[in-house]
Amino acid sequence: MIGAMKEIKSYVESNKERFLGELFDLIRIPSISALKDAREEIYRAAAYIRRCLLDAGADHAGVKETSGWPVVYGQRLVDDSLPTVLVYGHYDVQPAEPLDLWDSPPFEPEVRDGKIYARGADDDKGQMFMHVKAFELMNRTGTLGCNVKFMIEGEEEIGSPSLKQFCKENRELLKADVILISDTTMIAMDIPSITVGLRGLSYLEVEVTGPNRDLHSGIYGGAVGNPANLLAKMIASLTDENNRITIPGFYDDVLPVSDEERAEMAKAPFDLGDYKRALEIEDVVGEKGFSTSERTGIRPSLDVNGIWSGYTGEGAKTVLPSKAYAKISMRLVPDQDSKKIDKLFTEHFARIAPAGTKVKVRSLHGGQGYVTPTDFPAFRAASRAIKASLGKTPVPVRSGGSIPIVTDFEEILGIKSILMGFGLDSDAIHSPNENFPLVNFYKGIETIPLFYRFFVEEMK
Amino acid sequence: MIGAMKEIKSYVESNKERFLGELFDLIRIPSISALKDAREEIYRAAAYIRRCLLDAGADHAGVKETSGWPVVYGQRLVDDSLPTVLVYGHYDVQPAEPLDLWDSPPFEPEVRDGKIYARGADDDKGQMFMHVKAFELMNRTGTLGCNVKFMIEGEEEIGSPSLKQFCKENRELLKADVILISDTTMIAMDIPSITVGLRGLSYLEVEVTGPNRDLHSGIYGGAVGNPANLLAKMIASLTDENNRITIPGFYDDVLPVSDEERAEMAKAPFDLGDYKRALEIEDVVGEKGFSTSERTGIRPSLDVNGIWSGYTGEGAKTVLPSKAYAKISMRLVPDQDSKKIDKLFTEHFARIAPAGTKVKVRSLHGGQGYVTPTDFPAFRAASRAIKASLGKTPVPVRSGGSIPIVTDFEEILGIKSILMGFGLDSDAIHSPNENFPLVNFYKGIETIPLFYRFFVEEMK
Repeated sequence: MIGAMKEIKSYVESNKERFLGELFDLIRIPSISALKDAREEIYRAAAYIRRCLLDAGADHAGVKETSGWPVVYGQRLVDDSLPTVLVYGHYDVQPAEPLDLWDSPPFEPEVRDGKIYARGADDDKGQMFMHVKAFELMNRTGTLGCNVKFMIEGEEEIGSPSLKQFCKENRELLKADVILISDTTMIAMDIPSITVGLRGLSYLEVEVTGPNRDLHSGIYGGAVGNPANLLAKMIASLTDENNRITIPGFYDDVLPVSDEERAEMAKAPFDLGDYKRALEIEDVVGEKGFSTSERTGIRPSLDVNGIWSGYTGEGAKTVLPSKAYAKISMRLVPDQDSKKIDKLFTEHFARIAPAGTKVKVRSLHGGQGYVTPTDFPAFRAASRAIKASLGKTPVPVRSGGSIPIVTDFEEILGIKSILMGFGLDSDAIHSPNENFPLVNFYKGIETIPLFYRFFVEEMK
Repeated sequence: MIGAMKEIKSYVESNKERFLGELFDLIRIPSISALKDAREEIYRAAAYIRRCLLDAGADHAGVKETSGWPVVYGQRLVDDSLPTVLVYGHYDVQPAEPLDLWDSPPFEPEVRDGKIYARGADDDKGQMFMHVKAFELMNRTGTLGCNVKFMIEGEEEIGSPSLKQFCKENRELLKADVILISDTTMIAMDIPSITVGLRGLSYLEVEVTGPNRDLHSGIYGGAVGNPANLLAKMIASLTDENNRITIPGFYDDVLPVSDEERAEMAKAPFDLGDYKRALEIEDVVGEKGFSTSERTGIRPSLDVNGIWSGYTGEGAKTVLPSKAYAKISMRLVPDQDSKKIDKLFTEHFARIAPAGTKVKVRSLHGGQGYVTPTDFPAFRAASRAIKASLGKTPVPVRSGGSIPIVTDFEEILGIKSILMGFGLDSDAIHSPNENFPLVNFYKGIETIPLFYRFFVEEMK
């Protein structure tokens, strides 16, 4: 092991600058999947990754069309009798708004205080690219001990609408023993952790219409239902005084977590004071009877992700708006079904529409929750690899985020996923000033070859 | 009278096209007072009106600086011993957003189906310009029987922040027997009405801050107070199940209206079915125990005029926003005080701020309500003028809108105002496709000289 670690470290050390330069070239492409007119950037990012995979030693790589944005597939098949690792990641990013809150332009990466600042620095360009570079390392140093496949998609941030179909059509091509993903966080570099639970997602957009046109709020105010006031009432009614979601049937399929399991989870280090200080909030807000970690780990939640209506410009406009909109999403836990929740929400929202309004609801995005077993070879391999590179056995944690596609992978491909993420909560993914510490990027590249080595051992 | 009417009609008839062309030139200047960078357009509009007043026969006209946008002042002093009419109007307009809902560009006026379509077509460029043209008519036909002063401001749509000071500094210049204003509506051209009540206004902007940055709604959702959800709860709580405003003390100064008065008001023609059909709403929504006319005439109201938070673009962004904003206004009735209501709202909003949030409130706009007496010379003159030009005695009505400055005029200048408006509720002021029927524009020009004639009579 010591020899292997030395060789890995030395390769990373002598190629650091180039690795970073190549990642920066990828980050500079604003491949925002939510924008319909991002076609050129999306294809540019995909082509760039294909090129990187070939340069790193893939025996084949291609940009594969789907009904949406394309998937980059690449592989190196060493020997049929050896295990196969399928690396999943995504090259698309979230929109960068609000732009005025960034300290440097989101698509012009720069290093400040040892961190890469840019949209996609962590999620998921930075983390995904660690795998491309670890693959290069193993190829160049002749240490690749198994088969490797890459599936890097371009629609993760919009709910992977085409990936299921892609998996169905490519079952043979995607055959593997495990899916390896770095798109999650660790508690800290000195408190390493592996994500073993992910929440599902149900994301909808609602439109409430009152009068058929914007009205003068003086002439009509008080006599006509104002959709902005009424949408506020509707949203307010979706959670009760204990911060429980009021949609009938919402909790029906929530798997209860035993007191023993909750006690085990409570051992993961968490400092509420630090948490509040980091967010500059006086108090946390969440479902009564659960801790902060439980509220994001084992309990569902409901958030307004966006709301807009009426006049939002400078100064005062006395308008009674015709329409009000909101984007509302729910994070789901096992065994809640995203499609069923979409339906419950939609029916409930129509039911609570006040007199004088018309309501439309459409689903924008969704996916199932996931729980990783801690007793299978890939988990043990990841645990050993992290112990070897970071010096501590990682804690298994349930994360609040969603990677809906992992449930689909298991259903369609019959392959389990291991979530070996190197991000930190402070990386501000989806926010202005997204960042990724250089040390995490390089430590990730060092840890991945160890995972491959231990995985081959565990599979014997 | 028949001779005078003939002369008036003949003058209007032979100058119709020119009147309209001159109004269009004014409308084409996007003098949106809410925009800080509208300086050039504002001054262009002011200069244009000054020119029009001089061309119409003013013996003096000038653009007078204030601490904000300027006031156009003009006059023709005929004889010290005759009464003086001070015409008030405004050359500024509301913003035109949402632009995509206009059928023709807001600042390129066009006539369709006998109506002028443009921002400002009615409010107040169209209505104010009737006075300029009626003034021209009286001067050219040698029928001006009293002194006339014009005060046309550029900040009405943002709450006239500089006009009070302007009045205080120009008490002598503005001396008059009545202030004549056309900035309100009639029920219909065949059911003419005069506005005798206006509601006051208290318009505020609120900002609710949760965490110090936008967060990933998966990682934090359920554990951190979401300012968009919480702002919805706060807004929802501002009105109860009977649509009464819950701010403590809010109704303390609301003048009760006697059953007799309510019975008298109920005689004004109003068809709830037509009202609902025109707005395409299934039902009206308002304070329990009051009719629709009462809800806008004699009762206060609370409306969200704008709300925004989080991601409002295309597609799904799983953000838990750091901030949420709303513009909230209240229409006030006698004797509610706008400043006192600002204070009550601000204190209440801070008090109901949930744990984990910080709240800021700032006042954007405000003004007192107003009731015009129906037994003074200017009301009788307006009533007679409308009867003569439209064939029916106008109904006195209380309008829901606000022209806060009329209360200030009375306080500072000691002059009462008469609200002789020629707009219609269907003119969609403050909305896309604002319009003003040509017949209202021309009938207005014909009615105004009659008002002057009767006013001089009534003052004898």
